[in-house]
Amino acid sequence: MSDGRTDPAEPASDAPPPADPRPATDTDAVTTEHSHRLDPEVVDAVETAIDDARLETVEKIVATLHTADLADLLTQLHPDDRHTVVAVIRPSLRIDGEVLTYLDADVRDDMLGLLDADEIAGALKELDTDDALGLITDLDADKRQAILSNLPVAARRLLQEGLSFPEYSAGRLMQREFVALPMFWTVGKAIDFLRQTDDLPDDFYQLFLVDPTFRPVVGLSLSRFLRSKRSVRLADLIAEEEDLRTIPATLDQEEVALIFRRYGLVSAPVVDEAGRLIGVITFDDVVEVIDEEAEDDLLKMGGVQEDDLGSAVWTTTRSRFPWLAVNLLTAIVASLVISIFDATIEQVVALAVLMPIVASMGGNAGTQALTVTVRGLATKEITGRRARKAVFKESAVGVLNGLAFAAIGSLVAAAWFQDVLIGGVIGLAMIVTLVVAGLSGTLIPLALDRMKVDPAVASSVFLTTVTDVVGFMSFLGLATWILL
Amino acid sequence: MSDGRTDPAEPASDAPPPADPRPATDTDAVTTEHSHRLDPEVVDAVETAIDDARLETVEKIVATLHTADLADLLTQLHPDDRHTVVAVIRPSLRIDGEVLTYLDADVRDDMLGLLDADEIAGALKELDTDDALGLITDLDADKRQAILSNLPVAARRLLQEGLSFPEYSAGRLMQREFVALPMFWTVGKAIDFLRQTDDLPDDFYQLFLVDPTFRPVVGLSLSRFLRSKRSVRLADLIAEEEDLRTIPATLDQEEVALIFRRYGLVSAPVVDEAGRLIGVITFDDVVEVIDEEAEDDLLKMGGVQEDDLGSAVWTTTRSRFPWLAVNLLTAIVASLVISIFDATIEQVVALAVLMPIVASMGGNAGTQALTVTVRGLATKEITGRRARKAVFKESAVGVLNGLAFAAIGSLVAAAWFQDVLIGGVIGLAMIVTLVVAGLSGTLIPLALDRMKVDPAVASSVFLTTVTDVVGFMSFLGLATWILL
Repeated sequence: MSDGRTDPAEPASDAPPPADPRPATDTDAVTTEHSHRLDPEVVDAVETAIDDARLETVEKIVATLHTADLADLLTQLHPDDRHTVVAVIRPSLRIDGEVLTYLDADVRDDMLGLLDADEIAGALKELDTDDALGLITDLDADKRQAILSNLPVAARRLLQEGLSFPEYSAGRLMQREFVALPMFWTVGKAIDFLRQTDDLPDDFYQLFLVDPTFRPVVGLSLSRFLRSKRSVRLADLIAEEEDLRTIPATLDQEEVALIFRRYGLVSAPVVDEAGRLIGVITFDDVVEVIDEEAEDDLLKMGGVQEDDLGSAVWTTTRSRFPWLAVNLLTAIVASLVISIFDATIEQVVALAVLMPIVASMGGNAGTQALTVTVRGLATKEITGRRARKAVFKESAVGVLNGLAFAAIGSLVAAAWFQDVLIGGVIGLAMIVTLVVAGLSGTLIPLALDRMKVDPAVASSVFLTTVTDVVGFMSFLGLATWILL
Repeated sequence: MSDGRTDPAEPASDAPPPADPRPATDTDAVTTEHSHRLDPEVVDAVETAIDDARLETVEKIVATLHTADLADLLTQLHPDDRHTVVAVIRPSLRIDGEVLTYLDADVRDDMLGLLDADEIAGALKELDTDDALGLITDLDADKRQAILSNLPVAARRLLQEGLSFPEYSAGRLMQREFVALPMFWTVGKAIDFLRQTDDLPDDFYQLFLVDPTFRPVVGLSLSRFLRSKRSVRLADLIAEEEDLRTIPATLDQEEVALIFRRYGLVSAPVVDEAGRLIGVITFDDVVEVIDEEAEDDLLKMGGVQEDDLGSAVWTTTRSRFPWLAVNLLTAIVASLVISIFDATIEQVVALAVLMPIVASMGGNAGTQALTVTVRGLATKEITGRRARKAVFKESAVGVLNGLAFAAIGSLVAAAWFQDVLIGGVIGLAMIVTLVVAGLSGTLIPLALDRMKVDPAVASSVFLTTVTDVVGFMSFLGLATWILL
């Protein structure tokens, strides 16, 4: 830790002493500001302007908005109003299509549907390759072809090369714009080059030093580069840098994200199979991947295929249906199990009252184990040895909590129905079910993962089936045996 | 999009033509490499060395490891072996405690428990303020005080100032090490200063230009700075930069993350209440926040308080217990509802067989709506107007899927029990339950959010109660009315 900031001596004498950073109040209050979001009044103003048929007002308002705010506006407007705004901004999109990169899939596809191929091509021209690729990936092949044919040859080639990489791979995330310098140059020559050349990426964080075969040797951080004197050879700065982590273009994007997280990278070079430098991935692309993968896991664990917050009623209904249908089958299987014991239930109706308790406790305990395991698989924390440990641990936890809730459950049931045996039945069933729940909650995702199936999606269906069947069968079965 | 890479003309003539980046094969195969993870053989080698009582071998192996790999090793070892390795690396920790920053909370706390206050103080000295703060935050007050008193005055002051900020605020995330330059300097003077001064942060991505009162005016990206000629005044570069997003030190870390995501920031200045520059937050801290918040939501939705993958059996059991206890209460409430209709069940045992179907479908449909809503709240996509739209939409989806599953359910039930009326009962109950499920799944998290309660934690308990009660009551109530 250093003494705070680095600032040259001169301004210090002019400036007041370093600010005491302690907040003025003693509260532990954390503030939540909303100043970085689109003002709802802007949305109202635009809607009013459209109602009043004053398009020039709409144009004026839109011109004042930051791109991210414009994207918010388009997202929040009713589709009809959105189409009006698109009509207003159409000419400017040809020149700067950046707003398209800020939009969620729904709104973006809606807008792309409105624009012509040549307009979209114009919008793409100014974007980085990875952003442009992201826009055209989900379009149908005809429209995509039309857009590509409207692009200049060089841009078209870049996009076609990008499309040749597998979806969700590094090749789709990377920008083709980067700075590569020969190792034998000096810092001074490099600086002169950077000042003279026009064709630099808008933002870059590293300079890649390449050998004569264009293989990247090291990534020089700009902060280190800046500190070096002109006479120093770039090659001599290598020793201070860490080993370069090169990303193969076919590497899965989740792996890319894990590498960035692990080593705290700001950017990393992407190489082809021959190891030559073809692009760079920057941290913001990785942040987006992390965000999307996290959202994906959360939604899937909840039985939702995609973030349908912005989708229409019918689309959402159809999207939700399959999961519910599968769960209906699960529920019917559980009902079949119950029906095996219908004679028992007819005689002891208390069983019908109590039986959902065991099954639902099993479901909850199993879900706990499942959630931790799925998370562990996503972060690659559960490897071979840790998987075995996890299974044993969850069984042990299942036994312990099973005993605890067996005790509580038996007392409640016995007191409620004035019958110690019923208490005993529910107690035993609880232990069996919670142990099985813990085991299944861990084994099912591990097994699915080994079979290369996404555990987040399918696990809970299998788990619910197991916990329901075991829950009902153990409770009703023991009841049949003990009470009758 | 530009024509690919920026590289000077010279090496192009020496180097082969730009690589054709298209992968050699035609497959869409995405590769998943494991080369960036700790080799399991290393763990085995260390364990063997410990068993053979060869500590110098352990030392040799450890010396070859990257810090992230060392952290992995410590995490994967059995606690006894871990303690042995800690004993080996203790002396080096005094000099470089970086490995501590890579560890999960469990392992880290275990290690901090082993080390003395002066050893930890030594480890902290070399770290950035935000990393050091993260290490000592969760320690008990006595140990923390002991560590602080072992630090040099300046470092101690920095940490105490950091601790004065609310937990989970920008003030805790920021580094106090940054580069601030006066606006009237030229690029040339700035470069000379950067080359001469020793006291620079290890990595930085922006130069902050400050006015005489030390308020940040603009953040100059290094890439832009590098491109400018020596004679240019820093103040003249301002026009090309975007408006500076300053982060108040008390701002909640989730808000910070949203700002970084929204504007694609690599770093941002942190200011005190007077607007003066006191620190900087970099993207890697934000990535960690995003990751943690996402993990948090996922775990909470699954009824788990924290990632207890690495915790001991007893700790995990205790951590899982409260959620299960609350759900037991929910299940008992549902059982109470069933018991109201015990006479009906005694007469028509088919009801006991079918009743879990309606309740579980309600739970599943409600969870779908809940998951989307919780996600929407986390990303701040559900604001005032969109919340209303969401509620209406989920009700509509509930009606539509309710009708679909009512149809399917009635057919199954009627066929199974050869009774059209039972089919009708389950159909009506299904519609009612799915509509209520959709409504509750949306309204409950919105209400909790408005009351400043974390919706991810509490929502599912309320939801399950509602769907169970409504599910059982509608089914059994309608059955009582229609069949008897």
